[in-house]
Amino acid sequence: MAEPSFLAVDWGTTNCRAWVVGADGSVGSERDFPLGVSRLKPGEAAERFRSEVRPALGAERLPALMAGMIGSTLGWIEAPYLDCPINAGALASRLTAVPGEDPPVRIVPGLRGEGIAGGPDVMRGEETQVLGWLELDPSRLEGTRVICHPGTHAKWVLVQDGRIERFVTAMTGELFDLLSKHSVLKSEDGPFDEAGFEQGLEAAEDGGALAARLFTTRARVVGGRMPKEAARSYLSGLLIGAEVAGVPELLGAEVDEVALIGDPRLCSFYQRALDRRGVRSRTYDGSEAVLAGLKALFAKGDGA
Amino acid sequence: MAEPSFLAVDWGTTNCRAWVVGADGSVGSERDFPLGVSRLKPGEAAERFRSEVRPALGAERLPALMAGMIGSTLGWIEAPYLDCPINAGALASRLTAVPGEDPPVRIVPGLRGEGIAGGPDVMRGEETQVLGWLELDPSRLEGTRVICHPGTHAKWVLVQDGRIERFVTAMTGELFDLLSKHSVLKSEDGPFDEAGFEQGLEAAEDGGALAARLFTTRARVVGGRMPKEAARSYLSGLLIGAEVAGVPELLGAEVDEVALIGDPRLCSFYQRALDRRGVRSRTYDGSEAVLAGLKALFAKGDGA
Repeated sequence: MAEPSFLAVDWGTTNCRAWVVGADGSVGSERDFPLGVSRLKPGEAAERFRSEVRPALGAERLPALMAGMIGSTLGWIEAPYLDCPINAGALASRLTAVPGEDPPVRIVPGLRGEGIAGGPDVMRGEETQVLGWLELDPSRLEGTRVICHPGTHAKWVLVQDGRIERFVTAMTGELFDLLSKHSVLKSEDGPFDEAGFEQGLEAAEDGGALAARLFTTRARVVGGRMPKEAARSYLSGLLIGAEVAGVPELLGAEVDEVALIGDPRLCSFYQRALDRRGVRSRTYDGSEAVLAGLKALFAKGDGA
Repeated sequence: MAEPSFLAVDWGTTNCRAWVVGADGSVGSERDFPLGVSRLKPGEAAERFRSEVRPALGAERLPALMAGMIGSTLGWIEAPYLDCPINAGALASRLTAVPGEDPPVRIVPGLRGEGIAGGPDVMRGEETQVLGWLELDPSRLEGTRVICHPGTHAKWVLVQDGRIERFVTAMTGELFDLLSKHSVLKSEDGPFDEAGFEQGLEAAEDGGALAARLFTTRARVVGGRMPKEAARSYLSGLLIGAEVAGVPELLGAEVDEVALIGDPRLCSFYQRALDRRGVRSRTYDGSEAVLAGLKALFAKGDGA
């Protein structure tokens, strides 16, 4: 590879991934570390980064750029949120430098948007994925784009001509966990049930009265209209269907195409829900997107 | 009082309440017992009823009529669900007799309705309250009535000319418990926050995208737009507001007036949500309603 240029780090809640990036954008080496911020003791990030991450990649002398929860109060230092709308150039000019680090370490700030219902809304990490996804195909830097990151707290992001305009968070994944583990709808993990999932999507089609639609999971089993083994997939369909039915319009734009970034299996569930509504979608790799984002922000920033 | 006629028993999940009812409908004595079916060992109901409930009320020789979860698989014997639509006369003719009990013990069957989204839906106990509420004012036996029982699993019931036509269950109370105890929205119990509750109602006004609206609870606190002490009341307003925005229309009738039956404080929250939507409501005592229901079903049935 070309001369190493910087160390790109995607440092999230559960995991830390780092890449040595060459001056020509090529990747030298790549490693995962079980150092997600939820696993760190307070104040420990600096030491673990110096003693584990840098040496494992032979990157002791490279400047580093990090994105994700490492910039939260749980991380290394807090990188204060920047306001939307914002594009990659503006974000790159306002990276948060970690004081006293040499070689320098900088963190990508999270974003704050107006959100819904008197908001605001916040994100940390997804902004780098979104900006990276845009960079991966320059045609994406023009016009309106909608990106969805499914997950515990799904993020729906509206991009206009390369600027992140606004976004909405939906706690669908967390609701699924709570309901399938702790509620009257609780069910054991089991194989995915195709028919159950589709029925859940259908039952959620109008998006409203979620507390009533959720109860149908139980009523259908108790009433003998669905095997209990299908309940978990039905619940998943219900929650994803309700999200897809209601959230896109909160972005305040016509949504006829969505880029899904994240876990391929979870994205495939969203894709089915979008298909039913006649919305085109395609799934993209989250890791590739965040790396592209870090490269772009490093290049547009003042370099080392 | 008049000659005792029967022992009326409202036997639910957490509590058991019994009344000695005279031939003229007057009440002789009344007692609560901490014998809710969730607190009973399997098979224990019969023995506890004979050795504790009957003697405490001097009712060893009276026939008994019971409503509630005592007729579920967790209770004494299972009283199979009857199908809607159904009125008090039809329900009274199909009470479930407990085999071998002398004096006789009968249980009011729960109801099964078509529900929503491929249903069915089920209730056990609320049918007796609804029918009792109708009996308390004979004018209610004509025309369309909508009754709401707020709670862990709120029931919305449509009555037409004295028949329970259909109903919908919304697990609003359970969602509130789960979210306020176990989620990223968790909050400590504290004084009711007037402004927070109203803001929650407002944020839920269109009823859709609940997973996104829920996240605003956290975003508003993190973003400094709401004190964290208000989060719990805001969440309550959000969930009740979303229920009231979406569930009534699932009954398939124009809803311009609702009878709320249940805990007065909880009913007052629903009343505010209904007020905002221009729906009239009034709150009624649940215990009075269930007693009236048991009296009516006993009288319309074949008596002892």
